Amino acid sequence: MVTTPALIGLDWGSTSLRAWLVAPDGAVLEERKSDQGASTLSGHGAFVAAFDDVAGAWRAAHAGLPVLACGMVGSTHGWLDVPYVRCPAGAAALAAGLRRPGTGDGAASASSSISASAPYIVPGVLFDDTSLPPDVMRGEETQVVGALHLHGTLGASSCVVLPGTHSKWTQVCGERIVRFATHMTGELYAVLRQHSVLGRLMPDDAPVDPDAFVQGVDAARDHGELGLPHQIFAARSLGVTGRLPHEMLADYLSGLLIGHELRAGLQWRAMAGLGSQPLALVGAPNLCARYQVALHRFERPADLVLDNTAPAGLLALARAAGLLPIDT
Amino acid sequence: MVTTPALIGLDWGSTSLRAWLVAPDGAVLEERKSDQGASTLSGHGAFVAAFDDVAGAWRAAHAGLPVLACGMVGSTHGWLDVPYVRCPAGAAALAAGLRRPGTGDGAASASSSISASAPYIVPGVLFDDTSLPPDVMRGEETQVVGALHLHGTLGASSCVVLPGTHSKWTQVCGERIVRFATHMTGELYAVLRQHSVLGRLMPDDAPVDPDAFVQGVDAARDHGELGLPHQIFAARSLGVTGRLPHEMLADYLSGLLIGHELRAGLQWRAMAGLGSQPLALVGAPNLCARYQVALHRFERPADLVLDNTAPAGLLALARAAGLLPIDT
Repeated sequence: MVTTPALIGLDWGSTSLRAWLVAPDGAVLEERKSDQGASTLSGHGAFVAAFDDVAGAWRAAHAGLPVLACGMVGSTHGWLDVPYVRCPAGAAALAAGLRRPGTGDGAASASSSISASAPYIVPGVLFDDTSLPPDVMRGEETQVVGALHLHGTLGASSCVVLPGTHSKWTQVCGERIVRFATHMTGELYAVLRQHSVLGRLMPDDAPVDPDAFVQGVDAARDHGELGLPHQIFAARSLGVTGRLPHEMLADYLSGLLIGHELRAGLQWRAMAGLGSQPLALVGAPNLCARYQVALHRFERPADLVLDNTAPAGLLALARAAGLLPIDT
Repeated sequence: MVTTPALIGLDWGSTSLRAWLVAPDGAVLEERKSDQGASTLSGHGAFVAAFDDVAGAWRAAHAGLPVLACGMVGSTHGWLDVPYVRCPAGAAALAAGLRRPGTGDGAASASSSISASAPYIVPGVLFDDTSLPPDVMRGEETQVVGALHLHGTLGASSCVVLPGTHSKWTQVCGERIVRFATHMTGELYAVLRQHSVLGRLMPDDAPVDPDAFVQGVDAARDHGELGLPHQIFAARSLGVTGRLPHEMLADYLSGLLIGHELRAGLQWRAMAGLGSQPLALVGAPNLCARYQVALHRFERPADLVLDNTAPAGLLALARAAGLLPIDT
């Protein structure tokens, strides 16, 4: 039996675009990828063309299907600057914040020909506290909604961690994101690898080295008080003095950075009173595997590890916005 | 009265070269600068040519003057790979480790025509502890020797901090460097500014903003436990949300990174039992001024702030190596 899709969903980041044909139960029926990320495009026409490229065939085959997109496509430099929703933010608030390029706003005014060829864009979330700098996310809020939708145990009170270029540690309470903190772990790794005196020691073709990764995690766990700027240089010294083969330095650095994220994140989590609540990892399996290993070294393994939950999140938001037929 | 020089001294780093004609009392009589850093040169001939460029006229005018060079010129990728001296390292051990390109080694065999056109190169220092990664310096050891030579109060027990691309925190005890830790604060600033999502927000022509710097220092002091990878992203969020003008972000980041260095460094200093011993800053005046402001925010101002002490250090090492006439 062929399942009738309920939604076209897009995770439209800065550098890439993933699109899914989503079943009424959240299952992915088809997937397409594109390198036409939001930061590579400029102007309404370019976004319309990229959107047609990735989703045009699906839209022709399934007329009237709702389309939702999350991610940097909704940023100042995206297709449409969709205002952030402030914490606490749950599915209802995010659904109310959906905006569509080419129309005044939201779901009610989706009638012009321009808006008909544009997706609803999910707002990002803003955490704003008077005593701390604010924090922002775009895209991860949809993954959190998806994780809560798929795993009801997370909704009451949990910590959902989304590893990545800009890792997010989110505190969920009462089905809503109540606060979060971003760590630019992945980006730090990339810039240090490509542009630092340490990165220059690393061969390009080194195989993955789990032992080196664990050594880096342990260094952060046991000696993190020496400071990350010191420990990054110490990684170089390990290489220069021959104590660590150059082939191991990249994974050592990865462990060091993820270890520092965990060191700060687990303390943040404890301060938020989540020490005994579920801890979930959401993201790409190979990256989540690294975090799971690192969490074990900190003696706090994840309770749940989930692959991409954006399709389920987009479906839940479409439903909350009244964009799906009642019976789906 | 014209002072007769006692030494030609060179601080020959990776990217630049500074040379001085040094008086018997350590005063700089003349200075020359060159962009022929060690990393820009390859092969004995290239170093000889660069050396002649910067010091040839002085050598012709003052035949027989000893020449000492410190810095990356003594590294694996420099003119000659001069072995590190291990901690504890004082002037005597460093002088014994001097090596000259083109000869077997040290001061005793400086007779060939090749060696006659090459300086003595000061060894770097290695800190190697079984429980921690090793640490290395090349060039800063000479500045520490110079600081101790100029200020006798530092020799018994002190903390000498050398801000820079790779800042060094050194523990001095009994006239020797007994341990040290490097923080790659300056390099982190440069790679983040040039290559990160945060750097892209920063205008190139922003004026120096002391208030933004202090805000960054205070953020590290008061909330450093949130982790540097988080606080760097938070700086971006301050910019994105308009809470901090983009013109202020570079100095905020500078304050954040120096604040994290101080947070770790002052704790390291206390652990080393140096809490009540003199704290000296040695380096470029504008950078030392930043560190002095930051140290004030941590309520531990520097006891001494010294400009470039390398000429005095090179002179002290030449004297310790017996390269100067007895009466100078």
